[in-house]
Amino acid sequence: MVCTGFGQALALMAAALDQGGGRSVAMEEYGLTHHLEILDHASFDTPLMGVDDAGARTSDLSDTDAAAVLLTPAHQFPIGVPLSAARRSAALEWARARRAVVIEDDYDGEFRYDARPVGALQSLAPELVAYVGTASKSLAPAVHLAWLAVPPGLLDAVVEAKRLADGFTGVLEQLTLDELIRSGAYDRHVRRSRMRYRRRRDRLVAELAVRSPQVSVTGIAAGLHAVVRLGAGLTASEEEAVCSRAARAGLGIQGLGRFRRRPDPGAAAALVVGYGTPPEHAFAGAVDALCDSLA
Amino acid sequence: MVCTGFGQALALMAAALDQGGGRSVAMEEYGLTHHLEILDHASFDTPLMGVDDAGARTSDLSDTDAAAVLLTPAHQFPIGVPLSAARRSAALEWARARRAVVIEDDYDGEFRYDARPVGALQSLAPELVAYVGTASKSLAPAVHLAWLAVPPGLLDAVVEAKRLADGFTGVLEQLTLDELIRSGAYDRHVRRSRMRYRRRRDRLVAELAVRSPQVSVTGIAAGLHAVVRLGAGLTASEEEAVCSRAARAGLGIQGLGRFRRRPDPGAAAALVVGYGTPPEHAFAGAVDALCDSLA
Repeated sequence: MVCTGFGQALALMAAALDQGGGRSVAMEEYGLTHHLEILDHASFDTPLMGVDDAGARTSDLSDTDAAAVLLTPAHQFPIGVPLSAARRSAALEWARARRAVVIEDDYDGEFRYDARPVGALQSLAPELVAYVGTASKSLAPAVHLAWLAVPPGLLDAVVEAKRLADGFTGVLEQLTLDELIRSGAYDRHVRRSRMRYRRRRDRLVAELAVRSPQVSVTGIAAGLHAVVRLGAGLTASEEEAVCSRAARAGLGIQGLGRFRRRPDPGAAAALVVGYGTPPEHAFAGAVDALCDSLA
Repeated sequence: MVCTGFGQALALMAAALDQGGGRSVAMEEYGLTHHLEILDHASFDTPLMGVDDAGARTSDLSDTDAAAVLLTPAHQFPIGVPLSAARRSAALEWARARRAVVIEDDYDGEFRYDARPVGALQSLAPELVAYVGTASKSLAPAVHLAWLAVPPGLLDAVVEAKRLADGFTGVLEQLTLDELIRSGAYDRHVRRSRMRYRRRRDRLVAELAVRSPQVSVTGIAAGLHAVVRLGAGLTASEEEAVCSRAARAGLGIQGLGRFRRRPDPGAAAALVVGYGTPPEHAFAGAVDALCDSLA
């Protein structure tokens, strides 16, 4: 089903789960506050799973009675790691045993630079996984298009929720994307964008290595953001000072702590640095300003 | 606030009323099943007001504990009468006394053919009335644009509900409508459409008078549909047979009974005949087929 973005997909899934008596959706911490708010607004509990180098700690699921879990398997947001094979299996086993659903947020699946992208969880178990892809990263959020592949048991409820939420998704955008895909222009655009973002990421990593050797970039080479660990014993409570310096230089950068619901002021300090936004001519200057802010 | 259609506006209003503890929205009967379903889905009760030649019977409101009432004051849908001055006042008095809200569905306010349109209720009491206008009739439902003027006390909750439903409304459509309005093209289009629809309505009324003298067209000369009373002692239970004959002739027409939740098989038979849909070259043939179906 076509919808307007991941946010609407999540709201529709919540409405469908609610019809089946669901009251709880497990989420990754770190994650997007916006997704928490959508589930709060739908009166869902949102038990949190920790995230480490292998992605979401799926073992945390056994403590919950969640009707679903929201995962970013290809590229955990914002930590930037893929979900390990063992945890992919564990998530599916949990869903199968609990008759629960995995909501797979493939928010930037088009953009992996170092290796072939891992396949979607959904392809392994379409009866357990609701897959959500979006044109928000590949084209623009303003295009307002995403797509949702729902387990058969939830499809009618999701379609009904969509009908009662806004009837249908913008026809002009859908026809335009259809034309872009059929003509091959979408594919060419994604390839071109992948090269451009890869060069940006490479430049960011290289400049930071030279000018800010105390920091390190973590996460796989993918997507539109990097996690920059500040090092030197700094903790999360000190992230905001760096972000304020960056803001004065015109950069919109957030501390990693902003992506937690349970504050952890003692965690190692890090920044979430998006590199997709600046126009091409301004990118070098933006990296320069970031290095200055880190000095 | 801009949203995607009246349906979304109603869903957002329901979310906002729910935040304030509202559990009930009074509705007109006759009315659109779709609106009932939206409120049902949001777990609202929907007490019904009757409709007569002066519009919704606002006296029915005193029996309810509704947090809001949904009205079509300019042109009751589907009956086609405007809400009388006395009932306009009564609706506002009720809302003021009960701290309730009037949701004004101005679904085809652009199209009145016989007189100057009555002003919006909202302009009389913006603190009590949430006004919804839409481009679904003036341009097309696919444009997916409507606008919502909300009493100040509900604005934050409506904006928050929109943010959590789908973030924002299609930017491409909004920019396009903005350009249409600024250039004067929207105004010219509405004037041209008003003349075209008026001619269609006049033709429909004239043809029916000649070929089906047993029927009568009720409601004011406005909008995109007419209510055709079948006369000759026919009751609502016989509407479906006429609609089936019309369907075999390629016409999508509904019996008035379809717009009731509480069936009233003894009511006088009538059809709700939309005249906006056929392309120009097919309109005369459609009227002809309708007259055949009524024979």
